[in-house]
Amino acid sequence: MNAWETPHTLALIDLALEEDLGRGDVTSVVTLPAEQQLKGAFVARQQMVVAGLPLVAQVCARVSREIQFDALVPDGAAVKPNTPLATLAGPARAVLAAERTALNFLQRLSGVASLTATFVAAAKAGGARIVDTRKTTPGYRALEKYAVRMGGASNHRADLGSGVLIKDNHVAAVGSLLQAVQRARQQAPHGLKIEVEVDGLEQFDEALQAGADIVLLDNFTLAQVHEAVARRKRAGAAVLLEVSGGVTLATVAELASTGVDLISVGALTHSAPAVDVGLDFVG
Amino acid sequence: MNAWETPHTLALIDLALEEDLGRGDVTSVVTLPAEQQLKGAFVARQQMVVAGLPLVAQVCARVSREIQFDALVPDGAAVKPNTPLATLAGPARAVLAAERTALNFLQRLSGVASLTATFVAAAKAGGARIVDTRKTTPGYRALEKYAVRMGGASNHRADLGSGVLIKDNHVAAVGSLLQAVQRARQQAPHGLKIEVEVDGLEQFDEALQAGADIVLLDNFTLAQVHEAVARRKRAGAAVLLEVSGGVTLATVAELASTGVDLISVGALTHSAPAVDVGLDFVG
Amino acid sequence: MNAWETPHTLALIDLALEEDLGRGDVTSVVTLPAEQQLKGAFVARQQMVVAGLPLVAQVCARVSREIQFDALVPDGAAVKPNTPLATLAGPARAVLAAERTALNFLQRLSGVASLTATFVAAAKAGGARIVDTRKTTPGYRALEKYAVRMGGASNHRADLGSGVLIKDNHVAAVGSLLQAVQRARQQAPHGLKIEVEVDGLEQFDEALQAGADIVLLDNFTLAQVHEAVARRKRAGAAVLLEVSGGVTLATVAELASTGVDLISVGALTHSAPAVDVGLDFVG
Amino acid sequence: MNAWETPHTLALIDLALEEDLGRGDVTSVVTLPAEQQLKGAFVARQQMVVAGLPLVAQVCARVSREIQFDALVPDGAAVKPNTPLATLAGPARAVLAAERTALNFLQRLSGVASLTATFVAAAKAGGARIVDTRKTTPGYRALEKYAVRMGGASNHRADLGSGVLIKDNHVAAVGSLLQAVQRARQQAPHGLKIEVEVDGLEQFDEALQAGADIVLLDNFTLAQVHEAVARRKRAGAAVLLEVSGGVTLATVAELASTGVDLISVGALTHSAPAVDVGLDFVG
Amino acid sequence: MNAWETPHTLALIDLALEEDLGRGDVTSVVTLPAEQQLKGAFVARQQMVVAGLPLVAQVCARVSREIQFDALVPDGAAVKPNTPLATLAGPARAVLAAERTALNFLQRLSGVASLTATFVAAAKAGGARIVDTRKTTPGYRALEKYAVRMGGASNHRADLGSGVLIKDNHVAAVGSLLQAVQRARQQAPHGLKIEVEVDGLEQFDEALQAGADIVLLDNFTLAQVHEAVARRKRAGAAVLLEVSGGVTLATVAELASTGVDLISVGALTHSAPAVDVGLDFVG
Amino acid sequence: MNAWETPHTLALIDLALEEDLGRGDVTSVVTLPAEQQLKGAFVARQQMVVAGLPLVAQVCARVSREIQFDALVPDGAAVKPNTPLATLAGPARAVLAAERTALNFLQRLSGVASLTATFVAAAKAGGARIVDTRKTTPGYRALEKYAVRMGGASNHRADLGSGVLIKDNHVAAVGSLLQAVQRARQQAPHGLKIEVEVDGLEQFDEALQAGADIVLLDNFTLAQVHEAVARRKRAGAAVLLEVSGGVTLATVAELASTGVDLISVGALTHSAPAVDVGLDFVG
Repeated sequence: MNAWETPHTLALIDLALEEDLGRGDVTSVVTLPAEQQLKGAFVARQQMVVAGLPLVAQVCARVSREIQFDALVPDGAAVKPNTPLATLAGPARAVLAAERTALNFLQRLSGVASLTATFVAAAKAGGARIVDTRKTTPGYRALEKYAVRMGGASNHRADLGSGVLIKDNHVAAVGSLLQAVQRARQQAPHGLKIEVEVDGLEQFDEALQAGADIVLLDNFTLAQVHEAVARRKRAGAAVLLEVSGGVTLATVAELASTGVDLISVGALTHSAPAVDVGLDFVG
Repeated sequence: MNAWETPHTLALIDLALEEDLGRGDVTSVVTLPAEQQLKGAFVARQQMVVAGLPLVAQVCARVSREIQFDALVPDGAAVKPNTPLATLAGPARAVLAAERTALNFLQRLSGVASLTATFVAAAKAGGARIVDTRKTTPGYRALEKYAVRMGGASNHRADLGSGVLIKDNHVAAVGSLLQAVQRARQQAPHGLKIEVEVDGLEQFDEALQAGADIVLLDNFTLAQVHEAVARRKRAGAAVLLEVSGGVTLATVAELASTGVDLISVGALTHSAPAVDVGLDFVG
Repeated sequence: MNAWETPHTLALIDLALEEDLGRGDVTSVVTLPAEQQLKGAFVARQQMVVAGLPLVAQVCARVSREIQFDALVPDGAAVKPNTPLATLAGPARAVLAAERTALNFLQRLSGVASLTATFVAAAKAGGARIVDTRKTTPGYRALEKYAVRMGGASNHRADLGSGVLIKDNHVAAVGSLLQAVQRARQQAPHGLKIEVEVDGLEQFDEALQAGADIVLLDNFTLAQVHEAVARRKRAGAAVLLEVSGGVTLATVAELASTGVDLISVGALTHSAPAVDVGLDFVG
Repeated sequence: MNAWETPHTLALIDLALEEDLGRGDVTSVVTLPAEQQLKGAFVARQQMVVAGLPLVAQVCARVSREIQFDALVPDGAAVKPNTPLATLAGPARAVLAAERTALNFLQRLSGVASLTATFVAAAKAGGARIVDTRKTTPGYRALEKYAVRMGGASNHRADLGSGVLIKDNHVAAVGSLLQAVQRARQQAPHGLKIEVEVDGLEQFDEALQAGADIVLLDNFTLAQVHEAVARRKRAGAAVLLEVSGGVTLATVAELASTGVDLISVGALTHSAPAVDVGLDFVG
Repeated sequence: MNAWETPHTLALIDLALEEDLGRGDVTSVVTLPAEQQLKGAFVARQQMVVAGLPLVAQVCARVSREIQFDALVPDGAAVKPNTPLATLAGPARAVLAAERTALNFLQRLSGVASLTATFVAAAKAGGARIVDTRKTTPGYRALEKYAVRMGGASNHRADLGSGVLIKDNHVAAVGSLLQAVQRARQQAPHGLKIEVEVDGLEQFDEALQAGADIVLLDNFTLAQVHEAVARRKRAGAAVLLEVSGGVTLATVAELASTGVDLISVGALTHSAPAVDVGLDFVG
Repeated sequence: MNAWETPHTLALIDLALEEDLGRGDVTSVVTLPAEQQLKGAFVARQQMVVAGLPLVAQVCARVSREIQFDALVPDGAAVKPNTPLATLAGPARAVLAAERTALNFLQRLSGVASLTATFVAAAKAGGARIVDTRKTTPGYRALEKYAVRMGGASNHRADLGSGVLIKDNHVAAVGSLLQAVQRARQQAPHGLKIEVEVDGLEQFDEALQAGADIVLLDNFTLAQVHEAVARRKRAGAAVLLEVSGGVTLATVAELASTGVDLISVGALTHSAPAVDVGLDFVG
């Protein structure tokens, strides 16, 4: 059951179709005969990494079983401008009803995949893995994390239940970072690693000593990141290091070459501009 | 019943909470005592126009009736960096559970409002009204159109049922632009104006003669727009003129001063980057 | 995506099936072998205009993919008593499970279409267009408005978001009818005409002067309607005139010949009696 | 958990509000200040039996927690024209948003209760009990059956799972009426009586002999009904007799005085015209 | 529309799939190529009565239309250990996604059917009918009652609306058991028998005199049950007797031979252990 | 947002209430005056560990806001027979409507917690941690895992998205266990440990060498488990060992003392009998 097939996603598709089509399409009803057919192709109007074609297939199927939709490229493909991505054909009223919702989904998810691919390319030489965050469009968590994978990056935890990430509030409540890590080790599901977010080098040392599996260096300067990597080496620790906080295309390459393992980037999902895809009709 | 109170929006909030919290918050469960309280404030980290605080109130209420949420500024307010936008207080587990979903909604809608305000400001001298499109995040139509209003712009039609917009496919099916307009006039709900999309000056003239109430000049050059305005004047027609297609902050001011009535901008909703809002905890 | 295919309508069908079948059909379970087949035909038991056959198809499909349903006449057809409307065949348990819900939908929507056709026929000579209202069965807005179209009439606004209709409360809040119209003109979506409801000739004059696109003459006497039409002529205004309030089959013809453009009739949807359709089993 | 409080009914209310308000109320948004208050009263414009006020309370609560709704009469009350039924007060936008949906529900359910009361009054002297059928508005089963009770009649089975009713198809499948009754007696839930529908006196005798608890005389002539009552007397059977099929206000009194126990009337729910209720605003 | 096809059950299946698969299957995504196929068979690992295969078919269809599922035995079959129950084949990711939810449903419902069959066998000689109760897993009422039927027992009332069962609180409110029975007779749907729960022989006599159709002997000793049967005989009453309260496999045979008609057993649904079914992969 | 507050759980509660109350409570409607009040207490009829009281509070609130519910003990409390667990008071009709659903939830979840506590007690001396599995009642994943925690055990992965567990099919698809582990390490979310299921000692050695974080010893004999623990020691590996497969109360103590870290027990959730809780009404 893929991200575009879950009950959650089908509910989201229903919300989308209802909001655009719930009261019908008055223009088409008064101008298009019910039996008129229409063919078209989704075409990339710019360079992009594609994500969302199977979701568009779901949208079309939901609008009408009479729409024939065929993807021409797989999700994850990096395409040039003017590349046809998929064709669709069927009753004109149905095709036009599906058009806007299909494009809106496709442009957004391909936007996420494309921005992700840019970050991944920038970080490639450095060797760190680009990962996403929980800063996703509400309701789109699984879809956007899928788009991130299509862009070549990896996923951070899916939700608050599939990862332990100890922050200041947790530490304060328990009394010390050490105790917080120990308690998580004892009580959290045993398949989850213990990650600790730190805001400086002093807290970083504490996390190392507490035996954290992963340390999240939040808003560290480049110098601090270098120092953290050095201290890990000195300590001979197997801990993974993750950088986060205001990472941009301008800074990601240098960060990736510091020796950290992971760089998490909120912008992948919260600020990716839509890419331009059009629906060209034929015949 | 405002946009943040409809069954549609409550369903979207439920999807959002379920995807982040459906399996619990393992970190908080193992570190935070159930009775621990927490206070915080949402703070603008950059200049922005705020939109979404009543929606955040709904999110908090849905997470726990024990969260106290108080907005400090109204939606639509233009605020400076470091402005506190709202406070919240309640059980620590509940506050942390609401945090991410609340921020994700608020940053997105305020992003739309802020980008909109920039376009509105740029077009102000020219006199044209900035309007949105149907290029919204699927499921977010009403919310994003609300954010557009908070940013000072107006809404185009809400959906395919609340506006007549005749395009090429409709004209082709009916046989001529004139007949398409006439049929819409006879059969569409009488409260809807008839809008026609044209792709050149020749078709523009046809639309004028057909008696369209509104003509959408799609992807016209600046020169073509000026010419269309001039022809309208010569014809003495009461028709409204709308410009669309690739409008940017660089071009909007000039377009706004051509004499057209409306400029529709898809980027307001499909490509607005999130603005930066943080949740600062206190004492 | 037609009215009988939207997520909204599918949800309504689910509510209907759940309430009748949610606990099974005890009689059929204990008397009918699972493999038994049954054939039948929906037959009009009186003269009627048919509406709802595609919806019945959805109901059958939802009950069981093994039911074969075939419409014999199109929606909108005016049929004589004893006309077969559709056939269905399949497992006896499934056919009997679908029977009542299918008939209940079909009798109701055909009732609306049939009553509508009677009003349309009565108004035909006069020339005014019959339109519906928002006085629909809650949850049935789109379906009943579709039935109204099948009966030959037109739709008024679909909902509060797809039409501007200024009433007393709005005027009182703004201060004057003129200001209310102006504000709507500036702020409402530009594709919507401005309609104003008036309760007398004095207010009618105000509406004319304010430049309303449509004036709704609410509960006007026949003499007042004639006078309003005359004043419009004198003013040379392009404004549309709509009559509403207690319109009956006895009064509609005379009203239609006054020169008004539209007559809205709540009874089309709130008081249409069901027409009689039966399901006759064969062989 | 009353009929107006079930998840089913709340889902129906949500469908109703979404279809009217999902895209907002453009007129109110542009004319009414958010803080403006409004008071009104629901007033019966004709004689009626009231049903649905607690449902209206739910509608108001769902639109806005700020609406204050107070019923002035209980459901089931028979009121004269101009009787105030309930008051409501709150933000003007919310009150106007709730108005139409509230009235639509109230007028329909009170219509059912009022028509029912007329039938009950007509049958009173005769002594037979008026009952409803499954010919209800799809999705409204529980609400309309509640309205029937408010009108003074009783309910037939709620659905296919809460009553055994053996018809021709069941008899044919089992082989004989006797065997069908026996099988139902053995296998159906023991709390359900066995009812058999018969289409003539011969089949009636069979049903008596088979030991049916209730016999439904479908489309019997008045003479046949009298004969069936006489045969029951001769047989000394405790069986209940129910009449159905085309019962009208013209025929119900005579049928009720034949000695049958029950008269089921589909028109109570499928053809009750809406009664006239208005919302009068004050001050 | 069977129990496994209702909107209710489909909603339950969606909840089940969402909770297991909503965030994807990370292991399969990283190890299984999208095109890999997999075949398997559900195999009974112990003796059991099977229930739930059509439900499993629904689960598979919901996970992916590409899964081929074929039941090898009908529901209700009593099978020996190692009996193959069904085969499934399809994309490996889909098959593994469906596996756990399918097994969880199948093991539970077959557990109910199997425990029921044991009770039915134990009561067979005695002649009383085994029936279930409303003590079902919340949300599983129809499914578990179906499993009870597959196990050879009968169903008690489906819900509070499909049966009259007068208990202490009802008697106290009305004033006397006699009055409670009379009121139910007059007002409840006429197809429902009147059942009265009694806690001793004195109250039993009252119920007999009140003309109850069924008397539920709650927590009676064996001696009391015998005495009740004897008193019924003396009274020559046609009343049905039902025993309930702490019935076990150790006591059911003796109770069944007392002459009572029905024995209701809560444990059938609230305490049936899962039976062991495995999914064996082939090739 | 706790397990009993999520949209998922509220949907499950709605399914449960609808199935029991959707058609009303005919007995109460005809016998209990609407204004009658009722008080009662939930009482443990046997020794148990309580789980589900906050869920019962949700059920009561959903049935009627007029029910007052007060828990007397916290979830997780081990109580003796006859301990009052909670009180409730309110309109008699509402209290009786909530009764069965409340008890059904409470008896089931407390059953899970109680059986879990027995396993935890048996394993205590040995030192291994008892964990649950994905063998939960479909739709109840979060609720039953919560009950497991209340019983003193820990949770295994919540779903297929929050843990990596490599089984035979995955190994076969990738080619070798080593490669499967490496691929998971590279691509799965970095916060998840890599668990491998092995069916014998040879495969166990492979898993050790592949660097698995956790090894699941499936259906190992006691001797094999001892040998696996010994080999881990010899290898000096930090790997966690988990035992699963047919663990019973008879075998769990011995397994727990072998030195393994975790014992997963499906029976905790798939075969826990309901514990006996009653609702005693007071004066």
